[in-house]
Amino acid sequence: MGFVSLVGAGPGDPKLLTLRGKEVLEQADVVIYDYLVHPSLLRLAPQAKHIYVGKKGGDPDSTRQDSIDQLLVRLACEGKRVVRLKGGDPFVFGRGGEEAMALAKNKIRFEVVPGISAGIAAPAYAGIPVTHRGYASKVTFLTAHEDPRKKREHVDWKAIAGLSGTLVIFMGIKTLPNIIKRLLHYGKDRRTPVSVIRWGTTAQQRVVTGTLANIVNKVKQVALKPPAITVIGQVNRLRPLLNWFEKKPLFGKTVLVTRSRKQASQLSDRLESLGANVVEVPTIDISPINNFRILDEAIHQMATPHANPLPSRGEGRVRGIYDWIVFTSENGVEIFFNRLRDLRKDARVLKNVRIAAIGPGTQAKLQSFFVEPDLLPNVFTTEGLVKAFKTCGISGKKILLLRTTIAPKLLHDSLKKLGAFVTEIPVYKTKKPKGLQ
Amino acid sequence: MGFVSLVGAGPGDPKLLTLRGKEVLEQADVVIYDYLVHPSLLRLAPQAKHIYVGKKGGDPDSTRQDSIDQLLVRLACEGKRVVRLKGGDPFVFGRGGEEAMALAKNKIRFEVVPGISAGIAAPAYAGIPVTHRGYASKVTFLTAHEDPRKKREHVDWKAIAGLSGTLVIFMGIKTLPNIIKRLLHYGKDRRTPVSVIRWGTTAQQRVVTGTLANIVNKVKQVALKPPAITVIGQVNRLRPLLNWFEKKPLFGKTVLVTRSRKQASQLSDRLESLGANVVEVPTIDISPINNFRILDEAIHQMATPHANPLPSRGEGRVRGIYDWIVFTSENGVEIFFNRLRDLRKDARVLKNVRIAAIGPGTQAKLQSFFVEPDLLPNVFTTEGLVKAFKTCGISGKKILLLRTTIAPKLLHDSLKKLGAFVTEIPVYKTKKPKGLQ
Repeated sequence: MGFVSLVGAGPGDPKLLTLRGKEVLEQADVVIYDYLVHPSLLRLAPQAKHIYVGKKGGDPDSTRQDSIDQLLVRLACEGKRVVRLKGGDPFVFGRGGEEAMALAKNKIRFEVVPGISAGIAAPAYAGIPVTHRGYASKVTFLTAHEDPRKKREHVDWKAIAGLSGTLVIFMGIKTLPNIIKRLLHYGKDRRTPVSVIRWGTTAQQRVVTGTLANIVNKVKQVALKPPAITVIGQVNRLRPLLNWFEKKPLFGKTVLVTRSRKQASQLSDRLESLGANVVEVPTIDISPINNFRILDEAIHQMATPHANPLPSRGEGRVRGIYDWIVFTSENGVEIFFNRLRDLRKDARVLKNVRIAAIGPGTQAKLQSFFVEPDLLPNVFTTEGLVKAFKTCGISGKKILLLRTTIAPKLLHDSLKKLGAFVTEIPVYKTKKPKGLQ
Repeated sequence: MGFVSLVGAGPGDPKLLTLRGKEVLEQADVVIYDYLVHPSLLRLAPQAKHIYVGKKGGDPDSTRQDSIDQLLVRLACEGKRVVRLKGGDPFVFGRGGEEAMALAKNKIRFEVVPGISAGIAAPAYAGIPVTHRGYASKVTFLTAHEDPRKKREHVDWKAIAGLSGTLVIFMGIKTLPNIIKRLLHYGKDRRTPVSVIRWGTTAQQRVVTGTLANIVNKVKQVALKPPAITVIGQVNRLRPLLNWFEKKPLFGKTVLVTRSRKQASQLSDRLESLGANVVEVPTIDISPINNFRILDEAIHQMATPHANPLPSRGEGRVRGIYDWIVFTSENGVEIFFNRLRDLRKDARVLKNVRIAAIGPGTQAKLQSFFVEPDLLPNVFTTEGLVKAFKTCGISGKKILLLRTTIAPKLLHDSLKKLGAFVTEIPVYKTKKPKGLQ
C-alpha cells in the first residue's frame, strides 16, 4: 500500500516550502501538482513522475476534483509514494479536505504537510502584518467565488462588514467590485484602506493600494489580473514603513542566466535573494561522455602501474603514471571523482600524482571530494596556470589534461612548449540544449 | 550594518520550518528566540549566540517588547546577522509588526520569513481542515487575552457570533469560559462542535472535543493547560475520519535515546516520523582528542615515508608506512579525514595503505569522504573483522588501529596473534556528558 502526502507548496517563493515538504518531494514516486506551484519545487523531485492537474483561475470544477481524488487513490493502491503538491496550504481553500476524505474512506494512509498560506505571506511580503497591536486583533480569510450566484452557501456579508480586524480575500479580482459593494452596503467605512497583491512573495509581486471607495477603479486602471490576494483593514497603513521586499536592490528586474542548468543554480539563487526575477535559459548543455573507456583505462593504469601495461593509443598518449592531473573546470572534477567512485576506487589511485586546479571554483569542487590541489595559479586563467607550471618546472613531466571547454588547445600547446608530455582525455561533451535555436 | 530576519519557527513540529528559515539560522550570528520554539531548531545555528526572550503564557508585557525591539536594533547596529525566531508566524499574533517597525524606524534592513501558523497546522494535525466545502468557506483567527478587562480594543463578540465559518482562537485556555459565554449570549448554536488542541503538531499533541455547551467542563475535567488552540465550527465533524497524525504507530509514546547527541539524530528522526516523542539523553559524549600530535606524526610519516624518519614512541609503535588502517567506528573515520583536511592533505597520503571498515555504517562514512574500504567483514563485529583478516593473511603486516570504544584490546591482541605489528593511536575520547549522574 502506498502513501499520500498532501503538501502545501507555499505562496510562491520556493524558499517558503517546509523542510518536510522538501523531504517528501525527494522521496516521491509521483508528484501531482497545481497551477500555482513554482517549477523549481518540481526540480526537487527529478526521480518522480510529474502530473499536472491544475487549471488557470475560474471556479474549480467538481468533476475535475473527483478525478484528482480518484487518481490519488489509484496511485496509492499501486503502492506509490504520492505527493499532492498544492499552492499555499492544503486546508486553506485548497480542497485538501476533500482529498483527505477520499483517501481516508479508501483506507489509504496519508499525512498533511501544511504550507505557508498566501493569505498571510503575500501581505507580509507587501509590508502588511495581518494582525498588529492597536490595528487588528483578528483576521478573517475568505474565498470569493467567481460567480456568487452559483454558490449554495450563504455569505453573511452583514456579519463580515460588521467585523473589526483584517479581512483577507483569496482569488477575488473579478468579484472584487461585487464584494466591495456589499461591504459598503452593510456600512463598512469607505475610507478603509485596501491592498490588492498580485503574485505575492515572487519577483513579479505587484501591489495596488487604495480605499474601499476607490480600489475598484485603481485595479481596473492597471488591468490587474489574477492570481491576487486582497487585504482590507487598517493594517494596510503599515505598508509604507514596512515594505521591505520591494526595496530589494534587484526587485522588479528580470535577469537572464545563460549558464548550463547545473552551474546556474548558485548564481540564480544569489540574484533571487537580491529580489530579481531570474529566467534560466541555458545556452550550453554539459554532460559526461557516454563512453568512459579511455578514462577508465587511465585510472586502471594509475591504480596498477606495474601490472597490465596497456598499449599507447593515439598521439601524445603517455603510458603509466602521470606526474600531474590538471583540472580546468568543476565539471571535470565532478565527472572524474564520480567515475572513480563508480569504479569503487578512491583518491589513493592518484598516489604520487600531483593535482592542479585552474581557480578557486575548481579548488572548492576538489575539496568537496576531500582532495586538496597541490597547485593553484595566482591568476585564474589558462595563461596563469601555464605561468605557475613554468615556475615549478614541468620539463619531462607527464601531464594528464581532462578535456574541457576553456581553451584546451592553448593549454595543451603551452605545456608542450615547456617540455611536458601532455595526454588529453575527454570527460564531457557540450551541446546546445534542446529547444534553443 | 547588520541585518535582521524575522522568522516564523512554525507551530511546533520542527520539520515545518521553511527552507529560508533554515538557511538564515545557519548563517546567523545571533538567534533571539521565544518560549514556543522547538530546541532542535536552535541546533541548526550552533555557530550563533542564542538569546532567550520568551515568557511562559500570560499577557505579553509591553516593557518586555520594548526591550526586545531595542536588543534587535542594537545587535543590527553592531553589524550582526540576527535571526528573531518566533513560534508560528511573526505576523499572526506574533508581534512581528512591532519589531519590524522598530527596525524600519532605525533604518535597519530586515526581511520577514513567514512561518506555518499554529492556527492552521494544529487543526490540520488534529484532522480538522479550517476550511472545507459545504462546512466553512471562511476562517477567522482571533487572540484571546488573558484578562479581557485590560483590553482597550473593542472585541465585537456580536459580529463574531453571527459569523458562519470556522473560528480559531489562539492561546485561550483561561479565557475560554468567558469567550464561550459571550458567543452563546449572542446566539451562537450551543451544538456547534469545538476542539481544544494542546501542543498541536508535536508528539505531545492532545485534543479535547465537545460542543459550545460542554467544552468548558470537558477541558476542566482533564485540566488542560496552555499552549492551546481552540477550533469552533462544523469542520470539527471531519476529525473522526481525518485524524491521521494521532494514528501513527508510536503516537503518544515517549522514547528515550541514549546514544551520543551526534549519533542519535538519525534514529530520533525515524522514531519521530512514526509519531514518537523522542527524548535524547546522551549517556556518552564522544569528542576528538585535544592533542593531535601523535596522529599528525603518523600522517606526516605516511605522506613522506623516506624523509624525516621519526623515532618510535611507546610499545607497539611501528615506524613508516602502514599496510592497513582499521576503522572501527564512524567517529574514527570522521575525525581522521577531517584532520587530514585540516592539514591540507587528502587520501593520496594513504598511497599503498589498505583500508578496513568494521561494518556498513563505517563503510558509508568512508564513502562520504569518497574513500572506498578494501575490506569489510561478513559479520560486523570485532570477531568478524579478525576472521576476515585471517583469510587475507596479515602476518608481518603493519596495522594502524584508530583507538575506539568497542573492545580495542580484543582486536589489538587478536591481530597480534595473527602475526601483525599493531600500532594504536587514540583519536577520540569518550566521557559522561555534563549533568548526567
